Amino acid sequence: MTFPLPPGSTIGILGGGQLGRMLALAAARLGLDVVIYTPDEDSPASRVVRETIVAPYDEPVSLAAFARLCDVITYEFENVPAATVDALIALGADVAPGPKALAVAQDRVAEKTYLNAVGAPTVAFAAIDGPADIPAAAQSLSHPCLLKTRREGYDGKGQTWIEKLADEAAAFDLIGGKPAILEARADFVRELSVIAARGRDGETAVYPVGENHHEGGVLRRTVAPAAADQALLDQAERIALQIMDGLDYVGVMGVELFQLADGQLLVNEIAPRVHNTGHWTQDGCAVDQFEQHIRAVAGWPLGSTTPLARVEMLNLLGEEADAWPRLAADHDARLHIYGKRETVAGRKMAHVNRMRGPI
Amino acid sequence: MTFPLPPGSTIGILGGGQLGRMLALAAARLGLDVVIYTPDEDSPASRVVRETIVAPYDEPVSLAAFARLCDVITYEFENVPAATVDALIALGADVAPGPKALAVAQDRVAEKTYLNAVGAPTVAFAAIDGPADIPAAAQSLSHPCLLKTRREGYDGKGQTWIEKLADEAAAFDLIGGKPAILEARADFVRELSVIAARGRDGETAVYPVGENHHEGGVLRRTVAPAAADQALLDQAERIALQIMDGLDYVGVMGVELFQLADGQLLVNEIAPRVHNTGHWTQDGCAVDQFEQHIRAVAGWPLGSTTPLARVEMLNLLGEEADAWPRLAADHDARLHIYGKRETVAGRKMAHVNRMRGPI
Repeated sequence: MTFPLPPGSTIGILGGGQLGRMLALAAARLGLDVVIYTPDEDSPASRVVRETIVAPYDEPVSLAAFARLCDVITYEFENVPAATVDALIALGADVAPGPKALAVAQDRVAEKTYLNAVGAPTVAFAAIDGPADIPAAAQSLSHPCLLKTRREGYDGKGQTWIEKLADEAAAFDLIGGKPAILEARADFVRELSVIAARGRDGETAVYPVGENHHEGGVLRRTVAPAAADQALLDQAERIALQIMDGLDYVGVMGVELFQLADGQLLVNEIAPRVHNTGHWTQDGCAVDQFEQHIRAVAGWPLGSTTPLARVEMLNLLGEEADAWPRLAADHDARLHIYGKRETVAGRKMAHVNRMRGPI
Repeated sequence: MTFPLPPGSTIGILGGGQLGRMLALAAARLGLDVVIYTPDEDSPASRVVRETIVAPYDEPVSLAAFARLCDVITYEFENVPAATVDALIALGADVAPGPKALAVAQDRVAEKTYLNAVGAPTVAFAAIDGPADIPAAAQSLSHPCLLKTRREGYDGKGQTWIEKLADEAAAFDLIGGKPAILEARADFVRELSVIAARGRDGETAVYPVGENHHEGGVLRRTVAPAAADQALLDQAERIALQIMDGLDYVGVMGVELFQLADGQLLVNEIAPRVHNTGHWTQDGCAVDQFEQHIRAVAGWPLGSTTPLARVEMLNLLGEEADAWPRLAADHDARLHIYGKRETVAGRKMAHVNRMRGPI
């Protein structure tokens, strides 16, 4: 493949949800075609692209067709099976971000081990292969500590707090009896995130830091740019760049951060993809995270990450999205609706970027 | 049909070019599906929508299928055959803007007659049914005057100047021997346009005026908001509202204006659709003309037309679009590429919005 990919080239996206949909809309603005690969019929992304392959992620004939159709392949979620990406690469496809980023992002022990190795601090942690590993690890990390499955789990699923000695025995079974990680509690004052991008030539671009508020493990809102002193912003940017450089990363990455009382930042987790906490860039920056990701994987120059406006991004979960007529009439609200056919309680159906004034 | 149409509803668009494509991308942001109807295989719009019907505009079975699929139908060009719209309405479809707007926009004599009737001034004109009508009309309008076909013709096609008596004899054949209009010359100091919208409940919204520069009959660039005093802006807004109200219009309309030396505005022509001179709104306004049109035809509240930035929109014609790598690297340029498969000299391939600073 010769980069930059010219207009008319085809971007493949594994996954057909709202992130794939918004990536596809960004690609369209640049004159690029999109093919979606998803096991789901009638997915949100499938309705805004040239072609969709509906097949399981391990179906070899469909994967071969996908690889043939696409000039570059990316993904909208980090739990795409490693075997799928390996198969696509074996078929000659260019997959970005690459398998190294995916491997690190899929395993919480590998992730924190990698982060610490490149100088991105995290909470203390221990690998837990079975319930017998918990007592010693919990003693070393102190109660309360957090047991999470090593793989999968998102929005607070697959994890449990060990508050005291008596919680230790049941914890492993509570998360499903799978290989796990035990994490020390981060005594943070707020949750931040930084969205960053790295191009095929190593060029990097970092968006202003956002401040995030979760409810029940699910992101509720992001305020950006977050109020922060220059030292904090420099620290966030340095962390993002260290993480991306070490993975020879290509694409947009979301880095979730804990800010401690002393101003130090710890990395909570990374997402090798566009990220919910970066949705504010759609109405707050010249080039949003979706176009930025497409630019990066297509080998285009990265766009400006300069903020143009202060934005509060609010997720609309389940029936909250039924408020669209009121929000559509609010001149300070920019609606982004995902085209999901079924409203399910707690499901991310849409988001709104509330404009909070110029920078 | 009950308006506003909820997310998940289907917008039908007649025409598969760049305007249809940008309308489809705007609809997708609002969670609406799009079906394109076009005679052309592999059209730019077809690659960003749920479904495309490829058929001639007079094919009854396909039109019936289209009417059945869509909750509302709109169009990206004013020369869609009136019989097509009539057939769709007879099939029970809701078409917006309606047939009255289309009839007026398709016939230059009907257009100017309508405009004058609602108090929107134009140059003086005369209907020309054959070459014998020209001498008297030309004497009344004075040389030079402009002979145009009554129907079709765009970007300067289908028209010829009658500079002097000797030009009169050949003029009618030069434009193809069709029913025509003879127009007095407008002695204008600049060309402006106003993009306006009207909702199903009669709500209106008007964007700031743009200043347009043509080359060889084709739009080259638009600068917006145009420098203008309040009296001129009021005049432009009043003209746009009078035109829309008289047609019980639903959707976005482009109104091309001549500014005379004394500050008076004459209407050159109207387009019952999103308009090339409104592309600057994509990067200059909160809600652009494409989303505004979708909002209007879907019965949603209209969005804000407040300008956020000064923009210079440049059309990229033919091989000019090959400059995309340089433009993509320019942080003040926002690229919009149409996905056309063939580069043809003079063909609109893309546009770039150059950011010229805050308001």
